[in-house]
Order: sequence, then C-alpha cells, then structure tokens
Amino acid sequence: MDKILRINMGADGGPQFSEEALGDYAGLGGRALTSALINKEVPPLCHPLGADNKLVIAPGLLSGSAAAMSGRMSVGCKSPLTGGIKESNAGGQASQVLARLGYAAIVLEGKPAENKLHKISITKDGVKIVEDNSLCMLGNYDTVDKMKAEFGEKMCCISIGPAGEMKMGAASIAFSDMEQRPTRHAGRGGVGAVMGSKGVKTIVLDDAGMKMRSPKDPDKFKAANKEWVAGLRKHPVTGEGLPAYGTNVLTNVINEAGGYPTKNFMWGQFDTCSKISGETQAETENTRGGEGSATHGCHRGCIIRCSGTYYDKDGHYLTKQPEYETVWAHGGNCGIDDLDAIAMLDRLDDDFGLDTIEMGATIAVAMEAGIAEFGDAEAAINLVKEVGQGTHLGRILGNGAEVTGKVLGVERVPTVKGQAMPAYDPRAIQGIGVTYATSTMGADHTAGYAVATNILSVGGSVDPLKPEGQIELSRNLQIATAAATDATGMCLFISFAILDQPETFQALIDMINAFHGLSLTADDISEMGKSILKNERDFNARAGFTAEHDRLPAYFLNEKLPPHDVTFKVKDEELDQVFNW
Amino acid sequence: MDKILRINMGADGGPQFSEEALGDYAGLGGRALTSALINKEVPPLCHPLGADNKLVIAPGLLSGSAAAMSGRMSVGCKSPLTGGIKESNAGGQASQVLARLGYAAIVLEGKPAENKLHKISITKDGVKIVEDNSLCMLGNYDTVDKMKAEFGEKMCCISIGPAGEMKMGAASIAFSDMEQRPTRHAGRGGVGAVMGSKGVKTIVLDDAGMKMRSPKDPDKFKAANKEWVAGLRKHPVTGEGLPAYGTNVLTNVINEAGGYPTKNFMWGQFDTCSKISGETQAETENTRGGEGSATHGCHRGCIIRCSGTYYDKDGHYLTKQPEYETVWAHGGNCGIDDLDAIAMLDRLDDDFGLDTIEMGATIAVAMEAGIAEFGDAEAAINLVKEVGQGTHLGRILGNGAEVTGKVLGVERVPTVKGQAMPAYDPRAIQGIGVTYATSTMGADHTAGYAVATNILSVGGSVDPLKPEGQIELSRNLQIATAAATDATGMCLFISFAILDQPETFQALIDMINAFHGLSLTADDISEMGKSILKNERDFNARAGFTAEHDRLPAYFLNEKLPPHDVTFKVKDEELDQVFNW
Repeated sequence: MDKILRINMGADGGPQFSEEALGDYAGLGGRALTSALINKEVPPLCHPLGADNKLVIAPGLLSGSAAAMSGRMSVGCKSPLTGGIKESNAGGQASQVLARLGYAAIVLEGKPAENKLHKISITKDGVKIVEDNSLCMLGNYDTVDKMKAEFGEKMCCISIGPAGEMKMGAASIAFSDMEQRPTRHAGRGGVGAVMGSKGVKTIVLDDAGMKMRSPKDPDKFKAANKEWVAGLRKHPVTGEGLPAYGTNVLTNVINEAGGYPTKNFMWGQFDTCSKISGETQAETENTRGGEGSATHGCHRGCIIRCSGTYYDKDGHYLTKQPEYETVWAHGGNCGIDDLDAIAMLDRLDDDFGLDTIEMGATIAVAMEAGIAEFGDAEAAINLVKEVGQGTHLGRILGNGAEVTGKVLGVERVPTVKGQAMPAYDPRAIQGIGVTYATSTMGADHTAGYAVATNILSVGGSVDPLKPEGQIELSRNLQIATAAATDATGMCLFISFAILDQPETFQALIDMINAFHGLSLTADDISEMGKSILKNERDFNARAGFTAEHDRLPAYFLNEKLPPHDVTFKVKDEELDQVFNW
Repeated sequence: MDKILRINMGADGGPQFSEEALGDYAGLGGRALTSALINKEVPPLCHPLGADNKLVIAPGLLSGSAAAMSGRMSVGCKSPLTGGIKESNAGGQASQVLARLGYAAIVLEGKPAENKLHKISITKDGVKIVEDNSLCMLGNYDTVDKMKAEFGEKMCCISIGPAGEMKMGAASIAFSDMEQRPTRHAGRGGVGAVMGSKGVKTIVLDDAGMKMRSPKDPDKFKAANKEWVAGLRKHPVTGEGLPAYGTNVLTNVINEAGGYPTKNFMWGQFDTCSKISGETQAETENTRGGEGSATHGCHRGCIIRCSGTYYDKDGHYLTKQPEYETVWAHGGNCGIDDLDAIAMLDRLDDDFGLDTIEMGATIAVAMEAGIAEFGDAEAAINLVKEVGQGTHLGRILGNGAEVTGKVLGVERVPTVKGQAMPAYDPRAIQGIGVTYATSTMGADHTAGYAVATNILSVGGSVDPLKPEGQIELSRNLQIATAAATDATGMCLFISFAILDQPETFQALIDMINAFHGLSLTADDISEMGKSILKNERDFNARAGFTAEHDRLPAYFLNEKLPPHDVTFKVKDEELDQVFNW
C-alpha cells in the first residue's frame, strides 16, 4: 500500500494510468489522504463535474491488514452537492482488497471528451481500462452481476448506477459486500456524480494472489488486535446492542428522546415508530428468512456484524438490512411506517446508486410541497423510481433536498452547506446540531457523533436539550473521528468502545504503531485529526465558505420542536469556536 | 415622498399596514433606500421566501418630479436567486405615481400563514388590502386587465404572474407602462418570488388628485432640467442611437466586436445575427404597425423613447419592442434568429412574470443538456410555456440557469453568485467581466456598464480584450451607477451623456440640489455610491459571500472564445481591488 494509481480519463487518445510513490502523502490513509490530496491538487473553485476535480478512493491505514473492523473506504472529491470538500465513507469489500493490491489510493482525473462509459479492472496482473457502453444506465445490481460473470466470484466491485451517470447530487458509489451485492455505499455528497463525470461505470478489484498486509512488528500487532477485539466485544453497544438489532436499534431510543425528525422535521416523535423499529425489523427478518441482525458484517474482518438481510413477504432477498438512518429517512421523516416499503426504497436507492439519507430528506421536502401526501409509501416508491428513470421530477429529486426545495419553493429545507440532515433533530439533540452546522462536510452525523454522549451516555453525558458543553463535545468528536476511524479505515462504531474504554483506544494506537513501526501517542492521533480538519477547512475557505455557512437553517432557531418545544440554542459565536482549539 | 408604507402580510388576523416617517432613511431614494433598509432590517441568513425577508419598492430621489428620465423604480430584498442582497430596477409608471402619492417606499413584510392572494390599492384616499384568490395563476396581462376594469384607466399596476406565485428564482415583478401593459419588469434576482411569498398578487396605484412633487428651488430646478434635457438630446447615443433602433442597436455592434455570446457562450459571434438586429427589428415594426422605435418611453417623463411596440404578422399587438438583452437571450444565445419567435418569448416572459435574461440563459443551458436543439424556436417557446404551467421541467427552468445546470448535470453554466450573465461575453469585453464577477448583484450588466467604454468609446476608451484598466473602469461605473442613476430614479441610459459631458452631469447634480435644497458636489455623489455599495457588501458578507464569490466560472478562464480566441485575463487579486477605493 505504498503507491498511488492515477487514471487520467481525459488523456489524449483515451484513458491512461500511471503509478507513483506516495511522496507528499506518505503516512496518510483514508480521509487523511483523500483530504490532503484534494486540498493540494484540486482548484477549490473548479466545477465539481469538470476535468479539474479528482475522485480519490483510499483505504485506511490499517485496511488490508488483520486488524478487526479495518475495512472502511474513504472517497474524496470536491462535492457536487455542497461545493466543498467531501469524504464519503463506505464499507464493502473494496477497501481490504485495494489495500492488499498495494494501492493507498486510486485517483480518477480529467474528463473524457465524449460521453462514454468505462470499466476498470485492477488485479495482481495490472490495470485495464476498457470502454464498455453496454453498461449504460444499468442498475448497480445488474452491473455487479455482469462483472461477476466476467471477472468471477472472487472479485469485488465499485460502481455507480443511473444516478451517477446522470450526475445527480444525491448519487452514491456502491461497494459490493461479501455476498457480491452492491449494498454498501459512499452515499453522501454526490460522489457518484463525480465518478459519472469521469466516465467510469465500475472498478473491479481482485486480490487473488496478493497477501494480507503484514505488520512491522507482528507479535505486538497480534497482541494489540486481541486486546482490540476483546474491547469491542465487552462494550454494551458494540458487543450487544448493534449485533442484536443493527443500527435500527436507535429508532425507539431517539424517538423516546424526542429527537426523531418526523414529517420533514415537523415533530420530534413519530407515533407509529414501533412498526419500523429495529426490534420489529429483526423479528420480521428472522421470521422470513433467518438472516436477521448479527449475521452480516459489511466487510471482511468485521466482528460487530450489525447487519443482516431483508427478505420480502415471499421469502426472497430484497435488500440488506436497512440502516437506522435509511429507515428514518424513508420512514418517519416521510410519515411512512411500512417496513416492506422502506426496504423496497432501500433496494431502489442501492440499485440506482442514491444516498438514502438525501433521498428520504428530499422526498419529505417534496411532500411538504404537495407532490405527495406524508405517509404515502407507494408514492414514495414511485418518486424514487422517477429518479432512476431520470424524468424531470426525478432529476429534481435526485439532486437532493436543497435543490428540490429551491425548485418547488419550499422554505423548510433541513440542509447545511447543501447537504440534508440525517436522522437526529438538532433541536432535541443539540450536540449533533453543532456537528451538522460546523462539519466541513455539510450536515453529517458521522463527522462527530454527539448523539453518543447526548443520548447514549457513551463518552460521558451531556444534556441533549441544552447548549452547554456541546461545542467541546462536537469538537473532540470531530477530531477523533477524522483520525481514529476515517483515516485508519476503522468502522465508526468502534467509537463507542474507544470513548468509554481507554485500554481499547490504546489497543488501537498500539495496532497502528506495531503495524507501521511508529510510536504515536493519543495526542499524536489528536494532532492527525486536527490536521485533517485543517486541510478540509482550508479547501472550503478557498471555495468560498465562511463562518456564515457554519449555521443551521433559520427555522431551527425559530420553530419549536415538539414534544420538548425546544429550539436550537447554541449561539453563533459559540459555533465559531469549534475549530478554535 | 416623506413616508414609508409598511404592510405586514403576516399580522395576526390578516394583513395590516402602517405609515412612518423616513427616520434613519431620510435623504435616501431608490437603491440607496432599498439597500440601506435590507441591510439594516433583514437577517442575512434568513430564507429568502420566509417571513423575515422584506420586499422594498422605492422610487428614486427625483421620481415624481418634472425631471426628465426620473421614473425608474428600485425593488430590493434578499434574493432567492443569489442568496445575497438585490436591487432590481424597472421602468413603467409606478415610480412617478408612488412618489406623487407621497411614499418613499412600500415595504412588504411577514408572511401569511395560509396560501392566499391579495391585491393592494393605494390612492389619495388611503390603502386597502383585499384577499382576492380569483387572481390565482393569472398572467400579468389578465391581471392588469382585471385591475383596469376595477380601478379604471388611470391606475398603474405592480404585479406578479404565475412564476412569482410559484416562487421561482427567475420570477419578475411587472410594472405597467403608459399603455397599461405589464411590459416593464424588475426582472433580476427572483424579486417576483419574494412578492409571491408575501401573498401579494398586485399593487394598484392611482395618483389622481395628487400633485407633481415640487422642488425647493423651482427656478433653479427648471433651469437645470432644461440643461439636462439638452444634454441628453445632444449626445449621439441618447439623442440618436437609442431612439432610432432601441437598445437592440447593440446586436450588430457587439457581434462585430466578437463579444456576442452565442449558443450558451460557445462563440462570440452569431452568423445570422443580422436577422434579429435592431435595424431589422425597427424595419419589421414599422412595416407592420407603424410603432417602431422612438415612439415609446417606458415611463412618463422619458425623452429618449428607446422603445416601441412589436406587432405580429397580422398587425396585432404582441409585445413591447424586445430589448437587446432579451433578443440576445432568446435569440443568439439559443441559436435562434427568428424575430417573431423572440417577440413571442418576450410576451410569454412578460405574461408569466419571468426575467428574459435568466430565461434565455437557462434555455441555452437546457439546450446544451440536450433538452432541445440550439436554434429550435418552437421548442424554446414550448419550454417557456412549461414554466408558466409549472410542469416539473418548467419548475426547473423557472429557477434559472444555475439550478437548471445542477439538475441537468451541465458544467458550462454562465452564472455569478447564481445569476445568469447577460448579453456580453466577459472574455471579449473584459470590463463587463469585472462587473459580472464583483457586483453585489451577481452577473449584472447594469451594475457597471463597462461595455460603454470597452466598445462604444463612451467615457473614454479601454481595450476590451485586455485586462489593463478594467478594474478602475468597473469600479468607477459601479459607484456612479449606484448613486447617479439607481438612487435618483434616473434611467441607466443617461450614463452615456453624463460620462461624456461634464456639463450634463452637473445639470443632474443641480437638479438634485435644487429639488432637495442641497449643495451636493460630484464627490458627494461618488460618496453616496460608495455608501450604497458598502451596505450591499456588508449584507453579502454577513450572508456568507467572500472574495471567492467574486469570480467568473472557471471555464471563462480556461476556454478560449472565438473569434478572438481570448480568455478572461483579469487576475483574482485584481478583482479583489474593485472595492478597495
């Protein structure tokens, strides 16, 4: 994992690739690498769909190793959705495989003169770039099936659906999972549109013949990994809660807390949420096919296994177990309490290559505009189908909540920096509001998951309804997340364990040190996080972002959220202190 | 003209109005007043369609007086199109009438709880606000006809069409002309959407029983006005060129200069532009109905009379004489060289309440996306009809070029701060490029019409193809325009005479002084202009605008414009000096 693969899709005479040493980027992985490269190489004022933007696909520092939970992938670019820097994070198989193939990153550059599609394959035998317009407008499921037929049962696939080809702001990049299904997505920020603009439909990876990456100090690494796994197993969230019900265990919890955004952020509780909760979902899955939660990890090396598969009423595979944010986006936020409909929406999103969070938020805005009634599941399914077909309405919706709000003349649009808020109302969970407002990414719960401390009492406890303590909380989480998870290739869910268990955090640091022959301290990890955020803030500033963009939409400050009847109370001048460390 | 009429459309129990003295705004008119009020009273981060935005309609300092050319109206708000401050300027009758009714401004505030439409009438007998949902989705022509039936042949009308009701970013506000036709528009920035968000369909004014505003020193005023009129009559542009062929006299001139943006800014010359030139247009008009150029002013007191009427092939009134920018937007920029089709598009825009510049630029972007072929006039007409009908495609287009580019995935979108560029390519006329980039308004030729000095040798001469001298030129024009025309209620076209003839500029200052009992100097006028721009820049900064927003889209720096094969050469650091006076 000591080289970068650059593929110039705009080269004269057709795409060309080259390999180079890490150079300036040595020692960086995942988000640390994507954000450093984008900040250094992409003109901040370029058009996101233009030749000057770059798409960087980078495994983490520990990806491709034996470290448990290390298979997450970072995708970076200038975002078509926000206009700022983007790191979108995904599970799936590709991170481990790309790392074992020896690449710290794939960088797609340039732009083909003509509107042609390509498939790229990367194996131990080299890199091939082939024009293949037969893939045009295929869904991700069909695309993966075609690649499987061509490249075999061991390959893994990075692909875009029709949404990416149509360069939509909500377009995701799909990463196939252990069952070779395109169910894991770098969802946020329209990264799929950038891949589409480069004329790349799919990148197929096969690490056959390549070895697992080996640590500098194998004994220390093995010992640290053992401690690491033990730490994850003993924490109640990673050891019990997530495996039992998946991420959707949160539906009842967040609803109980009054922070479950319902019908386009109009209420903080959804009266029929028990019909779509994790408990109900797990029961449904187990009844139908016996593959409920705790049966699936999203990548090789996962030990939390918070996922499962969702079968339809007839017992046929429909989609992977929809995540909490998806169930919320297509469920409560649209007034929909039908799990089968939500699973169908998840399937359609995965197939068309769409961010489920952005799509659910968008449909709710469209419902507020009168395009459909809140609670009408059939209408919601048809709206997502319109996106996949690229009808005019579909084009509107596929470009996300902010554009949809503009086009339909809606005032209540829950976005920051053009990106839709996820499944936690910032008025009832004020810590996540600070993260939404200030993150370099636009509204993003994964950038600093203050819900942990506001609601789950992980990493201490901060009153969710009050502004006190939220700035420091979000700051620390944003720093820690950038480095400890997004740069290492670790799953975000390890955060629960490392926040509560110092010895588990130390085990992670020990693994990094043993693997790379380093002697980093916790402070060094913190510095790494700050450095990542600094790169991102620098890019965003040069792209025209100011403190005024680190704000929630005005209605969150004026409109009280039932049942707590609370508004967002963190002051602007406090928000401006998040990055003043 | 010493009071402000505030109408709170969101008051409990229905709309309420109040009158107040000018207070802090004493001595301000037109854009000076709108921008001061918006900057002081509107929260910069509010939603443009929300209750906190305000719509300010303000005549100029000399409006309602006997001063020739003083009948322009300023409309201010936070723009739904740009997100920044907006002053959109229009002719028509309302400015003179509102001033004679004694109002320095109407301020629409708040937002009705329900989606209801109102008509407001203002006469010597007072203000009436009446709910009238029968006006819903009427075109401006029908709206004016209804108001004429109700309020008589002397009233003048401020109204929005369906586009404003649908809160589109390209929605204009129509001001009826001397023939009671809704042909004069505050077109830019989506001001019609703000009026629509306030639930106001039309404001009817009648100054029957009110007198012309009288000057403090009638003799001096009369003498200055005489000198003023003589100055305008003797300048070749205001005395000959504009009256003879209207603004469309520019088509051949700008095309000859290679700065006529053709087919979405792909070329700088349009090979069949002679078919849509001012010369051809005047001949067509004269042949059909005998009301070509030089027959119409847009407001009472106009002596340039650059307008006329356009009759269809059967000799029936179709629309007012389309302006140069309209002929360009719907013509050359879309590859269309059919004057009748362009006139029909002008009529449809006026009726639906749409900015012709934004619509033409938008259709060209849609043509680049493949929605229609360049040159297909029938398709263009159908597209504008879709906007009026509010189909999904119509909603996209009605929100302007930037949104359309996003939704359709187009990279080449000629906008600055979200507003489409008008009819002058900034690569071949670099001075106007500086104005486009740096204006507080987004791309706007009227904010500092450097075309005058780059192409027409008015106010000196600066090579249009070179960056040298353009910063100072644009700076001086932006300052002068803000004060001498936009704050006084004067038509922009007086600029030609005051730039070239010091005695004519002095006559304008003498008129202001005699009217208001002041002793302003040319320097004072300049300070007034700076003060206006300072207010606007202050608002924009607090709304999140930075130097990075004072830039042209990247492709104007990278893509050479034929026939001169030139790119925009003014450097970023030079652009940042425009407001460094």
